Amino acid sequence: MDSKPNFGKFILYSYWRSSCSWRVRIVLNMKKIKYEQIHIHLLKEGGQQFTEEYTKLNPAQRVPLLVFEDLTTKKIHSIAESSAICEFLEETYPEETSLLSKDLVVRAKIRQIYNEIACNIQPIQNLCVLQVLEKDYKGDKTEWAHNWIKWGLEEVEQILVSSRGKFCVGDSVSFADVYLVPQLYNARRFKVDLSGFKNILEIEKNVSEIEEFKNAIPENQPDAEK
Amino acid sequence: MDSKPNFGKFILYSYWRSSCSWRVRIVLNMKKIKYEQIHIHLLKEGGQQFTEEYTKLNPAQRVPLLVFEDLTTKKIHSIAESSAICEFLEETYPEETSLLSKDLVVRAKIRQIYNEIACNIQPIQNLCVLQVLEKDYKGDKTEWAHNWIKWGLEEVEQILVSSRGKFCVGDSVSFADVYLVPQLYNARRFKVDLSGFKNILEIEKNVSEIEEFKNAIPENQPDAEK
Repeated sequence: MDSKPNFGKFILYSYWRSSCSWRVRIVLNMKKIKYEQIHIHLLKEGGQQFTEEYTKLNPAQRVPLLVFEDLTTKKIHSIAESSAICEFLEETYPEETSLLSKDLVVRAKIRQIYNEIACNIQPIQNLCVLQVLEKDYKGDKTEWAHNWIKWGLEEVEQILVSSRGKFCVGDSVSFADVYLVPQLYNARRFKVDLSGFKNILEIEKNVSEIEEFKNAIPENQPDAEK
Repeated sequence: MDSKPNFGKFILYSYWRSSCSWRVRIVLNMKKIKYEQIHIHLLKEGGQQFTEEYTKLNPAQRVPLLVFEDLTTKKIHSIAESSAICEFLEETYPEETSLLSKDLVVRAKIRQIYNEIACNIQPIQNLCVLQVLEKDYKGDKTEWAHNWIKWGLEEVEQILVSSRGKFCVGDSVSFADVYLVPQLYNARRFKVDLSGFKNILEIEKNVSEIEEFKNAIPENQPDAEK
């Protein structure tokens, strides 16, 4: 990289139960980056992500959003989309617990697994899709989410057969694990029977012992609700 | 990177009208990489991606899939998920037309835009989702796809206001443009009125003059149908 990073405090706009916000919290924790959370309630007041104030920050009206100042140029930057934020944090702080490998093919395998979740599972069971399905198509949103998560995790389980070690890809924690954990939380919310997913469950057990993952779970956030 | 790449011929499993395959074709062209296409028809015979033979190669039963040999280790590798493939090609051949910037924040902006398309638009209008919507929920798939593409491109149009130059991010072609072009094709397929998207249309015009983009369009593929 040409630019040497000199960034001020990171502010994360997030919602406790947003799985995409959760991914970023894990990465910030793994990178030992101190950050401030500003909570955007996705349901209250018709969704605080739709306010004029927040729309100015993120025209896509979604969380997470990472905002920070470049202390050299004094410019304020904002990055949306969890995968863009995660890759940015990895590139900016590569020395602190890399979540990608140094091997080109292994990096690709990590990205394959996290995109499997980020593109083929999470978006289709995302809140906004479920709302439209229920309102405009009179569809059963629980059944819809259940099925897409189940089908997607079946794919992930198959990929893990050849990629896994202690974690999703070999024996090092990676972005693949960062994306898997929040998706399993959603799987349980929508009553997916995980008992057949042997690889996924073993990896989840190994990952769940890591303090930085524990601190990122929804129930441990200040805006968590009972 | 530690590993110095020494890869054999690239084989791309693809389908002419798959927008995710299209992204990879553009990147291969931009990187001047010769490759062989093996065509997987997503509709014929109930979908050739579901055959036993292809499932062994890609348990996720999707295109694109990139297969190649590491000539040093003699191992055959396969990478699925278009974003994993695109990032792999960029990292493996950074010297030939970089599709990311060297600036950390600009790279993040490019990734924000391409993930906006890869996560918030394409998956929800993907063939398999439309099939389930129609079959199990009696939903109008054209209306569904139309609306999600329209809403998503409205977000992209807003983001481009501050990011664009000649292309999506400044004046260099990037992954953001690579992902935008196939999404616009799908927008037209599903009758989205693009006339209000001033930034998107201007960028599309600039991109469409690039030979490598022209060669990647569905109609120019050997498996294209009338």
